Amino acid sequence: MNPAPALPRAAAPPLPPISPTTDPVETLTTPPFSAEREARRQARYQEVGQRPGTLNVRPDALKPRMLLLSYTDETYSETEYTDRFDDLVAYLRDHPEQKHWIDVRGYGDLPLMERLMEEFGLHPLQMEDVLGDYQRAKVEVFDDNRLFLVSRMTEFTPDLTINDDQLSIFTGPNYVLTFQDDYEDCLDVLRNRFRGNFSQLRRKSSGYLAYALTDVVLDHYYPTMAAIGDYIEELEERIFDTSHERRLLNRILRIKKDVVRFRRLVYPERDKMSEILRLPDEVVPEDLKAYYRDAYDHAIQALDLAESYRDNISSLADLFLSDQSNRMNEVMKVLTIISSIFIPLSFVVGLYGMNFQHEDSHGHLLPLNMPELYSPFGYPILLVVLTAIVAGQVYYFWRKGWLSSD
Amino acid sequence: MNPAPALPRAAAPPLPPISPTTDPVETLTTPPFSAEREARRQARYQEVGQRPGTLNVRPDALKPRMLLLSYTDETYSETEYTDRFDDLVAYLRDHPEQKHWIDVRGYGDLPLMERLMEEFGLHPLQMEDVLGDYQRAKVEVFDDNRLFLVSRMTEFTPDLTINDDQLSIFTGPNYVLTFQDDYEDCLDVLRNRFRGNFSQLRRKSSGYLAYALTDVVLDHYYPTMAAIGDYIEELEERIFDTSHERRLLNRILRIKKDVVRFRRLVYPERDKMSEILRLPDEVVPEDLKAYYRDAYDHAIQALDLAESYRDNISSLADLFLSDQSNRMNEVMKVLTIISSIFIPLSFVVGLYGMNFQHEDSHGHLLPLNMPELYSPFGYPILLVVLTAIVAGQVYYFWRKGWLSSD
Amino acid sequence: MNPAPALPRAAAPPLPPISPTTDPVETLTTPPFSAEREARRQARYQEVGQRPGTLNVRPDALKPRMLLLSYTDETYSETEYTDRFDDLVAYLRDHPEQKHWIDVRGYGDLPLMERLMEEFGLHPLQMEDVLGDYQRAKVEVFDDNRLFLVSRMTEFTPDLTINDDQLSIFTGPNYVLTFQDDYEDCLDVLRNRFRGNFSQLRRKSSGYLAYALTDVVLDHYYPTMAAIGDYIEELEERIFDTSHERRLLNRILRIKKDVVRFRRLVYPERDKMSEILRLPDEVVPEDLKAYYRDAYDHAIQALDLAESYRDNISSLADLFLSDQSNRMNEVMKVLTIISSIFIPLSFVVGLYGMNFQHEDSHGHLLPLNMPELYSPFGYPILLVVLTAIVAGQVYYFWRKGWLSSD
Amino acid sequence: MNPAPALPRAAAPPLPPISPTTDPVETLTTPPFSAEREARRQARYQEVGQRPGTLNVRPDALKPRMLLLSYTDETYSETEYTDRFDDLVAYLRDHPEQKHWIDVRGYGDLPLMERLMEEFGLHPLQMEDVLGDYQRAKVEVFDDNRLFLVSRMTEFTPDLTINDDQLSIFTGPNYVLTFQDDYEDCLDVLRNRFRGNFSQLRRKSSGYLAYALTDVVLDHYYPTMAAIGDYIEELEERIFDTSHERRLLNRILRIKKDVVRFRRLVYPERDKMSEILRLPDEVVPEDLKAYYRDAYDHAIQALDLAESYRDNISSLADLFLSDQSNRMNEVMKVLTIISSIFIPLSFVVGLYGMNFQHEDSHGHLLPLNMPELYSPFGYPILLVVLTAIVAGQVYYFWRKGWLSSD
Amino acid sequence: MNPAPALPRAAAPPLPPISPTTDPVETLTTPPFSAEREARRQARYQEVGQRPGTLNVRPDALKPRMLLLSYTDETYSETEYTDRFDDLVAYLRDHPEQKHWIDVRGYGDLPLMERLMEEFGLHPLQMEDVLGDYQRAKVEVFDDNRLFLVSRMTEFTPDLTINDDQLSIFTGPNYVLTFQDDYEDCLDVLRNRFRGNFSQLRRKSSGYLAYALTDVVLDHYYPTMAAIGDYIEELEERIFDTSHERRLLNRILRIKKDVVRFRRLVYPERDKMSEILRLPDEVVPEDLKAYYRDAYDHAIQALDLAESYRDNISSLADLFLSDQSNRMNEVMKVLTIISSIFIPLSFVVGLYGMNFQHEDSHGHLLPLNMPELYSPFGYPILLVVLTAIVAGQVYYFWRKGWLSSD
Repeated sequence: MNPAPALPRAAAPPLPPISPTTDPVETLTTPPFSAEREARRQARYQEVGQRPGTLNVRPDALKPRMLLLSYTDETYSETEYTDRFDDLVAYLRDHPEQKHWIDVRGYGDLPLMERLMEEFGLHPLQMEDVLGDYQRAKVEVFDDNRLFLVSRMTEFTPDLTINDDQLSIFTGPNYVLTFQDDYEDCLDVLRNRFRGNFSQLRRKSSGYLAYALTDVVLDHYYPTMAAIGDYIEELEERIFDTSHERRLLNRILRIKKDVVRFRRLVYPERDKMSEILRLPDEVVPEDLKAYYRDAYDHAIQALDLAESYRDNISSLADLFLSDQSNRMNEVMKVLTIISSIFIPLSFVVGLYGMNFQHEDSHGHLLPLNMPELYSPFGYPILLVVLTAIVAGQVYYFWRKGWLSSD
Repeated sequence: MNPAPALPRAAAPPLPPISPTTDPVETLTTPPFSAEREARRQARYQEVGQRPGTLNVRPDALKPRMLLLSYTDETYSETEYTDRFDDLVAYLRDHPEQKHWIDVRGYGDLPLMERLMEEFGLHPLQMEDVLGDYQRAKVEVFDDNRLFLVSRMTEFTPDLTINDDQLSIFTGPNYVLTFQDDYEDCLDVLRNRFRGNFSQLRRKSSGYLAYALTDVVLDHYYPTMAAIGDYIEELEERIFDTSHERRLLNRILRIKKDVVRFRRLVYPERDKMSEILRLPDEVVPEDLKAYYRDAYDHAIQALDLAESYRDNISSLADLFLSDQSNRMNEVMKVLTIISSIFIPLSFVVGLYGMNFQHEDSHGHLLPLNMPELYSPFGYPILLVVLTAIVAGQVYYFWRKGWLSSD
Repeated sequence: MNPAPALPRAAAPPLPPISPTTDPVETLTTPPFSAEREARRQARYQEVGQRPGTLNVRPDALKPRMLLLSYTDETYSETEYTDRFDDLVAYLRDHPEQKHWIDVRGYGDLPLMERLMEEFGLHPLQMEDVLGDYQRAKVEVFDDNRLFLVSRMTEFTPDLTINDDQLSIFTGPNYVLTFQDDYEDCLDVLRNRFRGNFSQLRRKSSGYLAYALTDVVLDHYYPTMAAIGDYIEELEERIFDTSHERRLLNRILRIKKDVVRFRRLVYPERDKMSEILRLPDEVVPEDLKAYYRDAYDHAIQALDLAESYRDNISSLADLFLSDQSNRMNEVMKVLTIISSIFIPLSFVVGLYGMNFQHEDSHGHLLPLNMPELYSPFGYPILLVVLTAIVAGQVYYFWRKGWLSSD
Repeated sequence: MNPAPALPRAAAPPLPPISPTTDPVETLTTPPFSAEREARRQARYQEVGQRPGTLNVRPDALKPRMLLLSYTDETYSETEYTDRFDDLVAYLRDHPEQKHWIDVRGYGDLPLMERLMEEFGLHPLQMEDVLGDYQRAKVEVFDDNRLFLVSRMTEFTPDLTINDDQLSIFTGPNYVLTFQDDYEDCLDVLRNRFRGNFSQLRRKSSGYLAYALTDVVLDHYYPTMAAIGDYIEELEERIFDTSHERRLLNRILRIKKDVVRFRRLVYPERDKMSEILRLPDEVVPEDLKAYYRDAYDHAIQALDLAESYRDNISSLADLFLSDQSNRMNEVMKVLTIISSIFIPLSFVVGLYGMNFQHEDSHGHLLPLNMPELYSPFGYPILLVVLTAIVAGQVYYFWRKGWLSSD
Repeated sequence: MNPAPALPRAAAPPLPPISPTTDPVETLTTPPFSAEREARRQARYQEVGQRPGTLNVRPDALKPRMLLLSYTDETYSETEYTDRFDDLVAYLRDHPEQKHWIDVRGYGDLPLMERLMEEFGLHPLQMEDVLGDYQRAKVEVFDDNRLFLVSRMTEFTPDLTINDDQLSIFTGPNYVLTFQDDYEDCLDVLRNRFRGNFSQLRRKSSGYLAYALTDVVLDHYYPTMAAIGDYIEELEERIFDTSHERRLLNRILRIKKDVVRFRRLVYPERDKMSEILRLPDEVVPEDLKAYYRDAYDHAIQALDLAESYRDNISSLADLFLSDQSNRMNEVMKVLTIISSIFIPLSFVVGLYGMNFQHEDSHGHLLPLNMPELYSPFGYPILLVVLTAIVAGQVYYFWRKGWLSSD
């Protein structure tokens, strides 16, 4: 083995011209982006290329809080272990006969995250998924029969966007370990069920707890979808308002964006469930699969609903565009009716405003030049004629149906 | 085992700040919903997260009525057992040699539902599917060879919506147990066949009864589709009416919604049938499969029809939009023809309405100023010129084909 | 066994309030359908729910005619057995060494249909498919190695619709039994091939006859498609006619409906062929499969063609709509050019039609009031100015390209 | 065996009324087609129904020319055998140690085609594919390890259509037999490679020659696609020309038709390659599969390109339609600006053209009647007012951005 | 063996008429292309048909530079071997205990490429993929357990196009060989990780290096997508600007083209990953697969994102078109309001501009001819009437909502 230690850095100098550190993009002159966005764009290229499985914590991540729920069929305890990770580990080790839910919220402490990873035997890539920006719902089997489940919790906020947070679940022989980056979540309903005196949850395995967590997240999709459905209904009601604003289409397309996004969230959820159902019974026991089959049905129904909403929204957009075109039609009709009636009238009155002389400069009569003007009944007759023209046109437009307000 | 019973509630107090019970959504200021809808939205988030398999009965559910149809090859009896569940169970136990159809309608008695579940060995998740809001058509095998079938009965109401109710069927060794939430249904045709003297139904197994129920539901899809097809035809006839109203597109899109919804109902029906066909012969005997294969064909044909209707409806929407644009075209033509004819005429008559003086203030002749006005034939010649202009324009528009009424 | 024969009807009376025979739909007040259609809709719900496999014959079905073609390698006979079913059966029984084609046309004799079913060992559900309204193309294996094939014969009628009739084929050890509901069909080409002296058909097995029938039907798809293709070409040629009528889009969409319908017919044909190719060699011998593989290719090519037609038709619809919008553009241009030229001119001549007085009532000159009118060259100068305005505008519109006729 | 020879024709007479030879279509009165097309349509129905595998040669087929290329690793010969089929067969028989390419162009000699079929052991259905109108690209294995390959050679002609010809390839133990219906083809590049002195082709097996032929055809797809891509680019450049003609959309849709057609040609090519890759190694040796894998990649990339072109073309059509609508917008703006400016002005000058009398017929002053006309500065003031109105409107339209030329 | 050497060229002469070297296309008269493009088109047909696996180097390819990175767990060296291929090979041979990355950039030296191919045992077809114009991302296994990976590196340039370069990776027992055609690349991040003192990379196998390279390329998709996302957001913000230019749609469609292109790049990447995951463990060890599974997730998420962008962009195009139509609506409203108000007024003032005489030429009063003109309050009353007409119309338009600026 002669690793040639002398060569490395000495040989490197000729290389720089090949791959200069200056980004060739910088040399271009007319950036299509505002300066601030351009800076962001450049920044993004810097971040890329880290070792896979490198743990990173966003600077604004919250300080982790750790809560331990321990339970047996008869007993139940709930203790916060924030800043006391060693105590938590000790307690877990001392109580193998209990089932535990280790509930970690907030990622803002990288060393703690690394200790959690080691203590609970997680793979760095899994931990990267936990801490990363966005991970689709998925399931992984590791260590032969442990599960790593990712779910996405959604909430439809009053300002019409879908917030989604990630819930990462790891199962172990007698515990479930969950991660999320916010202190608040949608799992309180589950905690309350634990606190209830005769909770079935306490009697079931920790694998069932993992299912129950997954199911609560899935259940939260329904109010989200229902809120979207309600909003679509509101838009449907508004679309024929005469005063509807120009930006209504904007809203329609925004809610469409939400539905598309929701579909993207739920689609992997369905795949996840279906993958769980295909896992061997050693990993997911048959009786638990009955529950997951139920969850699978729910995911499919949520997808179905999202598809229907998509159809409804495009119908809505069609209606909007047709209505827009209808309004133009109406504007044109008004213009056409008024112009068609008055332009001929204006011609007629213009005709009799002409100055053709009835006498030449010598006083001779020019009897062919506008004798109407000298008729005693010229003016009344003209008024009758004009009225008749108007009546004729109104009748024509009425028969065309242009006078109906619709 | 030291379950640490002292810890639970004592340790809980520090937790609340992490997951407050106040919904963070409430703090936002500009809800996009009306107050009433916002309330509904909030309410929905409360319902979520119950234990899977928890039985809930809607407050407005009807009181359950139970009917027992018992039959052998030669005999047949029909008895109502409402409020007499114990008698029903006793009768079933005493007559194992008969085949039974236990027909339950209305869910409004939770304890009864729970007794039914226990007595007939149903899984809580199945019962949740029975009582829940909406369950896609599906089939499940349980207890090795029993079937749980869900079908959706549809009806196209005269106000153009599809009503759908759920029929849940459980098979047992010598009985079929059905649930539905309404007293009225589409199964009378089947009951009448039982009442017939030489009914084949009586001679077949109870598994065949389950099939027959499924098939009746499927058969009801055809009149629904036919009614939708009829309505589409009516819309097609109306689309070229000159008086068609602006809301016609609205109707077109509403019937499209129906078709999309119907497709959503039938699609799982096809999957259900195909899944039944793949079940082992112990669960569904080969001779019964011939019948299910027939039902599978029917489901596919219903889907085919729904697809065609979807195509027809989008063609219809295209026609509507093209017609709308055509009407605008017609309006524009009228405006253009009238304006193009009269605006030049108005110019000409305006020209001769000018006051250029033929004499200056000293009485000198200004012979170049509008000598036409002093010509003895000025006016008649002008009238001829105007008529020629009109004739020329009419000819031009006629050649462009704008005068044809189409 | 105590079948409780006393109970049945006695116990039934309390039931009616649960499922009344009056259809709840009848109570609604504003039907969206015309009375006649509403009646049809009601009627449809009555028909539903018969026993699966119940044979029904439409009232307008033709009287069945039966023809027997018997052949060996050297011999060939063609006999009509209408009204002589027993003779037919006897002849078949007496000549097992011959191959037979029993050709049944018209279904209007239910007892005969039932005897055919029994004599040839058909399943009631198969017979229901034969006699029913519409059955997709399909293949079924029964009695281990017999085939039941359904094909749909199409014809593109001169009034632009696709007629389709069903051909049902059952194979037996040495015979083929076919059903169709019309006396006329597209199979004469095949019969003529039999009549030829050295027909290969006579030498091949009866299984080959079943294939040949299927293939003739498939071959008939090509003239149908070709006729549709021709019609699309005609529409393409007409779309730029200046006189094209408003209903052209209607025609385009109608031919699209045909194409969609044709696709629906051929799609199952492809699946049928592919299923036949996967059948074991005992059912379809390897050498026959070579022929079916050919038919499979044909079905795929017909589908390909249908897809292309669909694309062409939507391009056609796009062209139509663009042309419609183009016509409006042209109308607007005429309006704009004429208005833009004459409206300013009208203003100018209106200006000099004003009556500002050159002298006040005391005869004093008001020299600033319209001195142009008193200039000796006022009128000629004005005419020059007006001409210049027109020339300027014409030049402007010419540069904009609005004067080109396109 | 009693073949009842007496019956056949005697029994036939009663049949004709059932299936008359007159086509029922002929009786209809209003054909949608021109007479010439109707005739073609009728003709097509006649051709249908021949025995599968019947050989037909189009009347305009070229006289077959046969060329034999024989080669070993070191030697190479090229001989034309047109009209000398027996010599060809003899030569092939005498030289089993050589590899041969029998290159047949033109099908216009049915007996020769039949002799080729027999001599080289081809199936009639395969020969029908060779001689027929159109056969998708495909591969078939026959005689256990011989291949029948169909490829489609394309060329994008300067008049914007894709010409495609069929190349049919049969492999044998030491030869390749190819058919095509034109004398000219795209295979000269391959022939030239043979003629080269150190051609690798000569050293490889005849199976490799079959691959090389297939690959040359596939390679020809690229210039076709590139030409289409170029044309799309030209259209993109022209779309913002101010003078673009109304038929541009027509061109866009025509090139789309080409792309769709090309996709239809290449799609089966991909399937063919993928099928070859799945063939057992006895049929296609592993080292040849490496080449076919390469061809498979090429087919996928051609498909990818076709998909992108499709996307580009629909973007182009969208741009065209938006531009069309933009032009209308511009036309409307000119109309609106000119009308809005001059119509109010015309009103004002019309106002002062009224003839209200300043004195009554008795000479009494009517001071309220249009005193402006008698003011010494009436006319100049009016001119100022008119100028102000124009300036106001121009400012308004400028602020609306309507005066920008965009 | 009688190779008949006399025949070849002697027999060839009769052939030329069959396949003339003149391209039949040349004879056509009206090329749709500019001359320059036509030339290019012709040229392309010449290139086609080379022997598969023929190596070609583009004339503008860069001179190859070769860099060797050698490393063990503890050591690391980086040496440039440009123009010293033999030294490189020698070094590799002498140091089998090290792991190596042979990094080749630039293809402009065909003999060197051929030596690389031979020395490292690559197949000519693989080398053709390396040097060719475009190869989709893919993976191939060769020599039983070596991998050939193709990745496409992307970069979103400030002028809104996606640049993509190809990275070809070959694995060997203890080395990785990479090819790319540019000196600059996106792999510096990886090189920097090597240079770091405690790099994990050094400790892992050369198979892991291949993965790391693949992963860096995949990571670079994110900034590309993010830049596209940013640009879409910018377009969304600009779409309601009043001054938005006509070419905005052009930009929208251009970015759509980018997204479609990106999707085409990433789609095969996903397939590649999924194929790697299915490879046997001997080729890709189980622990490496965990990493590839992670990369697979990333590819799917990039695809998801691309799909969302596609949806967003078509919403954007819809908004643009609706806005365009809205602007036209606004233009029409201005025209309609001004015309509707002033055209009737112009009629009224025209009416009183008529010259009906109040006295005939004999001085007799004609009292019915326009007595209004002689009323002392005629003019003031008329002004009031005109004001009332205007007020009425303004009220009407205000109620229609046409006066709101929206």
